[in-house]
Amino acid sequence: MATTKRAPAGAAVLRGDITVAIRNAVMNELAEVGYGRLSIEAVARRAGVGKTAIYRRWSNKLEMVMEIVSDVAERKVPLPDTGSFAGDLELLMMIVSRALQHRIASQIIPDLMAEAARNPQIAETLQRALRTHQQALAEKLVGQAVARGELPEGTDAGLAVDMMLGPLYWRLAIAREPVADDYLEKLALAVTGALRAAHP
Amino acid sequence: MATTKRAPAGAAVLRGDITVAIRNAVMNELAEVGYGRLSIEAVARRAGVGKTAIYRRWSNKLEMVMEIVSDVAERKVPLPDTGSFAGDLELLMMIVSRALQHRIASQIIPDLMAEAARNPQIAETLQRALRTHQQALAEKLVGQAVARGELPEGTDAGLAVDMMLGPLYWRLAIAREPVADDYLEKLALAVTGALRAAHP
Repeated sequence: MATTKRAPAGAAVLRGDITVAIRNAVMNELAEVGYGRLSIEAVARRAGVGKTAIYRRWSNKLEMVMEIVSDVAERKVPLPDTGSFAGDLELLMMIVSRALQHRIASQIIPDLMAEAARNPQIAETLQRALRTHQQALAEKLVGQAVARGELPEGTDAGLAVDMMLGPLYWRLAIAREPVADDYLEKLALAVTGALRAAHP
Repeated sequence: MATTKRAPAGAAVLRGDITVAIRNAVMNELAEVGYGRLSIEAVARRAGVGKTAIYRRWSNKLEMVMEIVSDVAERKVPLPDTGSFAGDLELLMMIVSRALQHRIASQIIPDLMAEAARNPQIAETLQRALRTHQQALAEKLVGQAVARGELPEGTDAGLAVDMMLGPLYWRLAIAREPVADDYLEKLALAVTGALRAAHP
């Protein structure tokens, strides 16, 4: 009995290890060669697994990449509650700015955005993941701030998303300008001021 | 005399026409196949000119694409003075949002950003063009607003760039969410509030 119980547990751990190995291989291949030139063969080789291990999990390259990237993107941004809106914003923006400056993310994100501009299926998957996740994030942070009396009731969560992520994305991923020590603090003040000013 | 005078004038017009034809061909090829697969041959064919006409103007593909794209990018954003900061912002953001939603721009920009992530020379050229142009733009609009008493002296023009372009870029080019009728007006209020709140 004991051995038959241990066997599936061991297999589950192994399955988990293989999934982690494949995920890391996909992220590294995406960074190195981009989505267009990524092949299941190269991922399998890099992960040290057979192609069947991949096809057992995903039916094609698009499905594999989209699931892995969505998972990683959603893992990267937790929902903070530091006790103040400024604190929540600063923490969120610190996490986002680190993610955007990460070697792998800074290669993968522009590449997937370019693929999305050519492939409606990629565009739709990425946008659905982004929207759902961001909207939930903004609603939580804005909701907390309204409850604390820091923002007016009915503050626009959609505008909050654009304000919390847009300037940072622009600076780090597009203009690729450095972020000064006090920039995030300043940005947190700016976003709070923006949401108050835009409220009707 | 008259004929010898007309001849160079005619040649100049022709040279200008050819440059326009090449520029349009480059923009369309960039949108269709992307920088990586763009070839001088295809541009020449599309523009209806010989390859020598291209090599007379630029020494290679990188130089050609960077000069054309920088020119177009700088042409797209004039420096408005509508009499109020909110008006200047709304006009600027209307121009930027139209440019970002343009079929060709929405293909070319993500592609060049992906190339920039892989090719430091492209990254540097694009960032230099962006920085110089944006900084000048922000300094002009902020300077006008300070002179009108709408923003405090010493308002951060670097932060203004991120605030004026980031949220719009995020919404239109990354999340690809639609812009509601009153969005730009709201955004102009938000940006003004942001710059006031971030001022020390």
